[in-house]
Amino acid sequence: MQDVIYLDNSATTKPCDEAVKAALNAMENCYGNPSSLYEFGMQAEDIVTDARKTIAKALFCREDEVYFTSCGSESNNTAIFGAAELLKRSGKHIVTTAIEHPSVLEPVLALENAGYEVTRIAPDKFGNISLVDIENAVREDTVLVTMMYVNNEVGSILPVEKIKSILQKKGSRALVHIDCVQAFGKLKINAPALGADLISLSAHKIHGIKGAGVLFVKKGVRLSPLIKGGGQEKGLRSGTEAVPAIAAFGAAVKALPDLNNSAEYLLKIKNYCLERLKAFENVVINSPENSSPYILNFSFLGYRSETVLHHLERYFICVSSGSACSKGKGSYVLREMGLNQSVVDSALRLSFSRQTTTADIDKFIDALQLALKLRKSNI
Amino acid sequence: MQDVIYLDNSATTKPCDEAVKAALNAMENCYGNPSSLYEFGMQAEDIVTDARKTIAKALFCREDEVYFTSCGSESNNTAIFGAAELLKRSGKHIVTTAIEHPSVLEPVLALENAGYEVTRIAPDKFGNISLVDIENAVREDTVLVTMMYVNNEVGSILPVEKIKSILQKKGSRALVHIDCVQAFGKLKINAPALGADLISLSAHKIHGIKGAGVLFVKKGVRLSPLIKGGGQEKGLRSGTEAVPAIAAFGAAVKALPDLNNSAEYLLKIKNYCLERLKAFENVVINSPENSSPYILNFSFLGYRSETVLHHLERYFICVSSGSACSKGKGSYVLREMGLNQSVVDSALRLSFSRQTTTADIDKFIDALQLALKLRKSNI
Repeated sequence: MQDVIYLDNSATTKPCDEAVKAALNAMENCYGNPSSLYEFGMQAEDIVTDARKTIAKALFCREDEVYFTSCGSESNNTAIFGAAELLKRSGKHIVTTAIEHPSVLEPVLALENAGYEVTRIAPDKFGNISLVDIENAVREDTVLVTMMYVNNEVGSILPVEKIKSILQKKGSRALVHIDCVQAFGKLKINAPALGADLISLSAHKIHGIKGAGVLFVKKGVRLSPLIKGGGQEKGLRSGTEAVPAIAAFGAAVKALPDLNNSAEYLLKIKNYCLERLKAFENVVINSPENSSPYILNFSFLGYRSETVLHHLERYFICVSSGSACSKGKGSYVLREMGLNQSVVDSALRLSFSRQTTTADIDKFIDALQLALKLRKSNI
Repeated sequence: MQDVIYLDNSATTKPCDEAVKAALNAMENCYGNPSSLYEFGMQAEDIVTDARKTIAKALFCREDEVYFTSCGSESNNTAIFGAAELLKRSGKHIVTTAIEHPSVLEPVLALENAGYEVTRIAPDKFGNISLVDIENAVREDTVLVTMMYVNNEVGSILPVEKIKSILQKKGSRALVHIDCVQAFGKLKINAPALGADLISLSAHKIHGIKGAGVLFVKKGVRLSPLIKGGGQEKGLRSGTEAVPAIAAFGAAVKALPDLNNSAEYLLKIKNYCLERLKAFENVVINSPENSSPYILNFSFLGYRSETVLHHLERYFICVSSGSACSKGKGSYVLREMGLNQSVVDSALRLSFSRQTTTADIDKFIDALQLALKLRKSNI
């Protein structure tokens, strides 16, 4: 099989060798149950503890603030439903944005259907969220502000660092949940400095494997569990720990290169790609200035996203037409940005990783050039 | 490291080679996102589809009735909360037993705290649940009967095959949820013949890896999801699929030997162990007659469970003092059976697998013999 040119790293990433090795060790040598009382089970528990320490260090937080879940979506659901339950006597208003991941949008909608009021801040035409809008949205009865750090479709960086000070200024005791799934391993995330009560992470977006997520819960915040039972993860998340995926998560975090160096490298890749895209008359860039260097959203006007996507895959180039979850439906993020339908219908997302090279970009541009010869679709 | 004699297979099992190989292939070669539109993502989707087909075949059900979750606990939570939500206008009474797994007991308790009435059928002194008790428990407003097939601590087999006909006889439209975590791969589970609406399975109890479970949902039963978001698993379970663990689950099911042959082999192992245990004056057997051949619970009177457990692990023998989840607390299952405190405090669970040999049993018995020399603890 020819190697793929994988430019869809916001959907998932290739597990790094360290992650695969750690998962394999957990499967073959440390298959005991971490809850068992004997040494062989404790070896599995040690793997989980070691991963927890590694992730705590990466978040600049305490080890006992890191809880393992099965994925970022579970972390988001646990955070949102848990926060609402915890503060149900304090109020029923939630502040969020219109460009969150579905695993935030849907739990918030479920709460709205159950009687909560929700303020969804719309992005500007560049995909940015304004601080003033956040400040204006917070009310006396606000119990939760839930917002992503980096948007998964256009890469806009939301001003989440300022939420806590806005809440303090307004005398609000609302909890702050930050979905850091696209930010972790890319931007520095200092949980205490961020002032976050809850932070969601996912392993498979940073070269771990699918099947592990993390929910950071600030010490003192007592969330109700979403999955109840045997009391694993100090009762916040029951169920036998997915030791292989957790081991891989820890190993993937340990294997992360220096974040600044990575960001610098990725910015070069992104700028190179932007430069080459400028040669196309029918390309418009949808990602804002100063967005994440890992994400570049553009529209290839006159050609439907799926048409180009399938053309590119003939050259083993993987890109997406939006988030992986949307499975080809038009992007609600781009619509919320107020972009016109032709831009939405022809949007493509490139998402890079530290494994991406300028040679990959060249191959992508060459293949895109050939796409110009495709019969224009009827949009 | 010396090989362990692993007699704790109800807590977890050693992944079989086929499972490890399948997980490795998913990690290294098919790391795309199953929701992606291009061929490389579809390879990951194909892995998930293939595992789904394998498990559907094992349950004698339709492929579209098999939903992947992250673990048995998540399956149980999804089943119970989902069934209650679905039928909330039909009634608020639940029938269950007092010897369920915590991932059933706790969601049921949460519903009770939210206003549901619960009938918890107590076992007899052997750990068996009576059909008459089930029949008497079902009321007009019963919306859910949730029961395990095989008890994880003593191995008693519950009369779940008869639940549907009892409900029909009584004109009840309650949903039937069967926790088959300890039964799957051991007893034949024919979902349609069982009359189950919901069935929970776990991969790591049958030589798969930790991080995958299944919820069988009978076609036409429309459960609310526990984890909401991108709409994976037809909306019942959002979150990127844990492809490596799902691949391993499918491979582990394919690698299951003939269930009858296995049961016959395991019965020989269990009977051999029973025979040898009879030589001890201070041993009483807690597992009932005709219980699962995979589980043997006994008490070593005069010696606290943990004392013997830690003695045994010096010989690399892994047994448990109850379920892995209970982490050394006295067994509520044995207490519900009405056994006296000295029996509860000295209980040990052996749980076998197809990898267990009579030589393993001999080593266990030899080590147990040496335990007699331990200073009696003060119970």
